[in-house]
Amino acid sequence: MRLFHIIRAQQFDRELLSRIFSEAREMEDVARKGGSDILFGKVMATVFYEPSTRTRLSFESAMMRLGGRVISTENAREFSSAAKGETLEDTIRIVDGYADVIVLRHYESGAAERAARVSSVPIINAGDGPGQHPTQALLDLYTIEKELGHIDGISIAMVGDLANGRTVRSLCYLLAKYKDVKMYFVAPDVVRMRDDIKEYLTRHRVPFYEEEDLKEVASKVDVIYQTRIQKERFGDRIEDYERARGIYIINHEILDVMKPDAIIMHPLPRVDEIAPEVDEDPRAAYFRQAQNGLYIRMALLKMVLTG
Amino acid sequence: MRLFHIIRAQQFDRELLSRIFSEAREMEDVARKGGSDILFGKVMATVFYEPSTRTRLSFESAMMRLGGRVISTENAREFSSAAKGETLEDTIRIVDGYADVIVLRHYESGAAERAARVSSVPIINAGDGPGQHPTQALLDLYTIEKELGHIDGISIAMVGDLANGRTVRSLCYLLAKYKDVKMYFVAPDVVRMRDDIKEYLTRHRVPFYEEEDLKEVASKVDVIYQTRIQKERFGDRIEDYERARGIYIINHEILDVMKPDAIIMHPLPRVDEIAPEVDEDPRAAYFRQAQNGLYIRMALLKMVLTG
Amino acid sequence: MRLFHIIRAQQFDRELLSRIFSEAREMEDVARKGGSDILFGKVMATVFYEPSTRTRLSFESAMMRLGGRVISTENAREFSSAAKGETLEDTIRIVDGYADVIVLRHYESGAAERAARVSSVPIINAGDGPGQHPTQALLDLYTIEKELGHIDGISIAMVGDLANGRTVRSLCYLLAKYKDVKMYFVAPDVVRMRDDIKEYLTRHRVPFYEEEDLKEVASKVDVIYQTRIQKERFGDRIEDYERARGIYIINHEILDVMKPDAIIMHPLPRVDEIAPEVDEDPRAAYFRQAQNGLYIRMALLKMVLTG
Repeated sequence: MRLFHIIRAQQFDRELLSRIFSEAREMEDVARKGGSDILFGKVMATVFYEPSTRTRLSFESAMMRLGGRVISTENAREFSSAAKGETLEDTIRIVDGYADVIVLRHYESGAAERAARVSSVPIINAGDGPGQHPTQALLDLYTIEKELGHIDGISIAMVGDLANGRTVRSLCYLLAKYKDVKMYFVAPDVVRMRDDIKEYLTRHRVPFYEEEDLKEVASKVDVIYQTRIQKERFGDRIEDYERARGIYIINHEILDVMKPDAIIMHPLPRVDEIAPEVDEDPRAAYFRQAQNGLYIRMALLKMVLTG
Repeated sequence: MRLFHIIRAQQFDRELLSRIFSEAREMEDVARKGGSDILFGKVMATVFYEPSTRTRLSFESAMMRLGGRVISTENAREFSSAAKGETLEDTIRIVDGYADVIVLRHYESGAAERAARVSSVPIINAGDGPGQHPTQALLDLYTIEKELGHIDGISIAMVGDLANGRTVRSLCYLLAKYKDVKMYFVAPDVVRMRDDIKEYLTRHRVPFYEEEDLKEVASKVDVIYQTRIQKERFGDRIEDYERARGIYIINHEILDVMKPDAIIMHPLPRVDEIAPEVDEDPRAAYFRQAQNGLYIRMALLKMVLTG
Repeated sequence: MRLFHIIRAQQFDRELLSRIFSEAREMEDVARKGGSDILFGKVMATVFYEPSTRTRLSFESAMMRLGGRVISTENAREFSSAAKGETLEDTIRIVDGYADVIVLRHYESGAAERAARVSSVPIINAGDGPGQHPTQALLDLYTIEKELGHIDGISIAMVGDLANGRTVRSLCYLLAKYKDVKMYFVAPDVVRMRDDIKEYLTRHRVPFYEEEDLKEVASKVDVIYQTRIQKERFGDRIEDYERARGIYIINHEILDVMKPDAIIMHPLPRVDEIAPEVDEDPRAAYFRQAQNGLYIRMALLKMVLTG
């Protein structure tokens, strides 16, 4: 069965995840050897309704490493501007005539799904509002497997903004597919993990614990997944934001209690929730994690374009 | 005689149009087979003084399908900004050192002509203000020929904003080169076809009729060319805009009276002047028309770059 | 010794400059023959914190002429925006995972140096605020050598905004490495050459003269390097700006007194400090100078990427 649209984290089962990761490992080789030409003649369109330069560059590099070409806009709101008022569906029906795959970033939850319904070429969801960002979830999971050697049986602490963090939410869905995973949620009061995820985990019998003492949790987990308190989600509630940030910081005190082979992850960008002193520690996996995004995206592009 | 600059619809005679369309048909094959490499090593610059993402992506995809490369800006106004104040001519004299062909979009009528006067590489006009957009006119004409099998002898209804629509104006110039073409103009009062075009058609003995009853006209033409009422052209005159839009809509009532092998065209984007129910009808040609833009632009790039 | 980061004009000695120029001469051949593929599989990232379309297009064209590929943003301020607040160092540590070389444009002096400290791939400084723009300095020097056949022994007039002109400052550093160079500074009072450069020249025993009579100077130099009075540097001091501009204009009166084999250079864009009537004179070297930027950048990319 060929992988076509990539819309949400839940669409992947363990077998498919395992195929993607195996492909990504091969891509590390390909990249090391200076790239390949298997997507020669293929064109990827990045259609971004809001800028997300890091994600866009990562996809574009992935396409180019495989010999493909890229047409690109971070200005796709122009399509749907007040004056022109084109629907997302019409835009996709036009762009699918120019490209062999469309990487879509949109500000509305569900946009990728709508695009997939009319597109004649694969749609890859590169984030749709508060909804999904499945390639990020895949690279997170890939990083865990690569760094620890396995996913079954791990214990992971998710720290920071668990209410708004698209990343941690998607990761929960994926981790629920593995055995004996234990989760610890460490979040300021105003941004605690939402009920829908907690119910999902309960339904899938994944044990989770809401904790307050990061140091205590840090001493027993294999993965600390730190996230940024997202100022932009607080709007006018500056006080709430100021209260939330700065409570849970990864620094040398946390490093001191962590297991020697545990890792620290972060979807980046970080502000000050990981102190710079942590960067030199071999357990700091976040820049390697960002790099893994390239391999995962190469793997996905190869899979959707060559079947 | 080699095709060099592409500035205005009037520059093409029937023989050249026929060569372009024959090249475009070949390009459909090339695209189907995954592209070609005949423009390998060539660089196209898209220099856009105002964003027009759809047009830009179409040109860029065309260049890439032929193995060429692209450098691109939608921010060319920076060149001529108040602080830096560079003339268009100077900008072109610099960019022609970086690229083998320049695709220019500008907000001023006549800009492409000025650019062509100083450029050492071909200039392709991708729209200059209220002036010309010749590649759009070519793809429109190509669509008619491809869909109907001929251009001589057709009758066409042009509907909507005929005063400001660069597209319909250019198409009139081109259709006047063919035999026995009959035109019907169906436009709200405030945006009727302008006198310069009507005089041009009279001079070239092309019969045209200004009509009010779209349904009546729809029943007898081979092509309905619908256009958007361009809100941005009305400025403060919101009432005029509101009065003009919504008068002439293509919907199932129009479909019901149309000839079985007639087609509906639209330069896109559309707002609500074609109802979504029309999309599934085989006579709805507008997405195929957009796709034809790719083939026409591939053909033109090949012709100006390889002679 | 392999060339890696390119940060400032002073980093080059005569031997390295000579190697770069020899490479650039080869690149002219390569470009004439339609490019090469020696950078096939390599990816260049242009990371611009402020737009500089001309510089960006020049680098991108250079990379493509050598078969390389490009990922690009002029929107890099998004990385460090108030909401996300990522440091330049973090951004570079991520992008160096996507690309084989990073071309950086930044608004802060010293940014390229900071980037180089953390990057695992070569950084090329494409201008960092009032600081350096070394590839511009190299193409200026290359132009002098190419046009005059030598650099030792030349006399050069630098004209216009010598206080804020990054270009002339960098060129002074480079010219100080050559023998018997004589400099004339001709600047409005408010934008005279700064003391740091004058002290540097004194220390390196380069004779320089501050003059007021452009015509008199023009009659005896080999190179007139004209620059734009940069309005954007004056802020509210509009009167100072108006007083400074228009004092020193290159026009037919200057052409009349110049030596027959002298040249006129300008980093471009120009406003009105060179009259259009000068363009047709063979001594007007500024468009050829811009074109040389392509060859210098091809040479540098080849050198940093292939060793």
